[in-house]
Amino acid sequence: MDDLYKRIESSFNRQGLMKTLNASLDKVENGLVQISSKFNESLSQQHNYFHAGVMTSIADSACGYAALTRAPLDKDVLTVEFKINFMKPANTRRLIAVGKVIQAGKTLTICEGNVYDDTGEKLIAKMTATIMTIALSGK
Amino acid sequence: MDDLYKRIESSFNRQGLMKTLNASLDKVENGLVQISSKFNESLSQQHNYFHAGVMTSIADSACGYAALTRAPLDKDVLTVEFKINFMKPANTRRLIAVGKVIQAGKTLTICEGNVYDDTGEKLIAKMTATIMTIALSGK
Amino acid sequence: MDDLYKRIESSFNRQGLMKTLNASLDKVENGLVQISSKFNESLSQQHNYFHAGVMTSIADSACGYAALTRAPLDKDVLTVEFKINFMKPANTRRLIAVGKVIQAGKTLTICEGNVYDDTGEKLIAKMTATIMTIALSGK
Amino acid sequence: MDDLYKRIESSFNRQGLMKTLNASLDKVENGLVQISSKFNESLSQQHNYFHAGVMTSIADSACGYAALTRAPLDKDVLTVEFKINFMKPANTRRLIAVGKVIQAGKTLTICEGNVYDDTGEKLIAKMTATIMTIALSGK
Repeated sequence: MDDLYKRIESSFNRQGLMKTLNASLDKVENGLVQISSKFNESLSQQHNYFHAGVMTSIADSACGYAALTRAPLDKDVLTVEFKINFMKPANTRRLIAVGKVIQAGKTLTICEGNVYDDTGEKLIAKMTATIMTIALSGK
Repeated sequence: MDDLYKRIESSFNRQGLMKTLNASLDKVENGLVQISSKFNESLSQQHNYFHAGVMTSIADSACGYAALTRAPLDKDVLTVEFKINFMKPANTRRLIAVGKVIQAGKTLTICEGNVYDDTGEKLIAKMTATIMTIALSGK
Repeated sequence: MDDLYKRIESSFNRQGLMKTLNASLDKVENGLVQISSKFNESLSQQHNYFHAGVMTSIADSACGYAALTRAPLDKDVLTVEFKINFMKPANTRRLIAVGKVIQAGKTLTICEGNVYDDTGEKLIAKMTATIMTIALSGK
Repeated sequence: MDDLYKRIESSFNRQGLMKTLNASLDKVENGLVQISSKFNESLSQQHNYFHAGVMTSIADSACGYAALTRAPLDKDVLTVEFKINFMKPANTRRLIAVGKVIQAGKTLTICEGNVYDDTGEKLIAKMTATIMTIALSGK
């Protein structure tokens, strides 16, 4: 499990956008990854809540990394597409995105991403993502 | 047209995330808005290209604002949901997102968002978004 | 509960396509509707499994009716959009679609539709749908 | 071109659902397929218009076959997922679905499906589909 966390963390730390979004890698399990983001004004939309793009970005990374936990070590992952529904205004101090593998195939993995508020109880947005397993670049 | 630009710009300037993403409001027409983002490392994914979240964020704002150009002056807009397909790696110095109204209804407006590379020719991602017209908050 | 079933059944029976798809209304609860379809050759794709369109049609109806169980009696519902992922080939004798309300709002309701095989265990397809509450036509 | 039509037609004719939906294969070009469906009561929703499932089914087949026109002869295609927005009520005597390839890759092809009314002018629904190229079964 420790190795699993390190594998994901090593890629996470190379994503400049995650640092920009105040995001931290909270949890890495087989088929599940949690990423959260702390609010500040640089992440806002016009009403000073989290911009939908922040929810989407951390949910996308959480889904992609959940898929990566299931991929062979010589593989990387790529988001093919996703759809996200926004259900409540994101007026919370911290967003919690949980990406979970719904089905892992050889080429494609389907993940679900749920974005919660600070309490981890209120569902703010829901994503379904299609992730592709590809050769690790440079290999 | 000038007033239209000012209406959108006034909201755009309040979106902290747009500044964070190096985004500029390039074009505002009736039913069409263009937003672009200049690359730097703070916007990257693990291979040092633009993170999918950046494409998505500017495409979402471009779609929302395209819908806003068609909304009555006492109304605001809210993204209900969107779906986005990523078609090519975003290895470009500048992303250009064009949001366009496909159908404007009283309550819901459907927009299409195309994300291009620096040349404005290569289609990198394609979004379809459902936007809701709501009462301007505080009114 | 009986009244709830009758409300949904009365609309279901007017959907000519449901009869054409060998579909039956199995279950109606507050926020949840189950519809299943028995296979025959008139519902096939080129490999003689269920066509994706059959899965989609019964999942759409199940989601719409799940939303309708939550709507005031003088209202009807309309599908705004949905997205569906196909996860396994639909080589089963019967498809079971379960539509469930994820969030009910005044204007929009978000539903999830899961399509299972005959056993009710194997997840074949997964839908997320946005449903709009509208005035009952003719009223 | 004639061979292209025959390739698609041979698969289309094996789709039992297409016959059930009164569907005809109108046009086959490189990267584009048109399928239309004539209304009768067996295809209706509760207000006696076309059921959303009919629009979706012919748009899905049109997108899949558009992708197939670009696939090598020893390959078949499979719908991974799609999203569809319904923009106007389908109160027309004939639905026309046009599937078009937006981007063809080795493994995945992205298509757009537009569904029009009888006149071919009014856009009723809009689909984006992800199609996978697979080995022809039995080969």
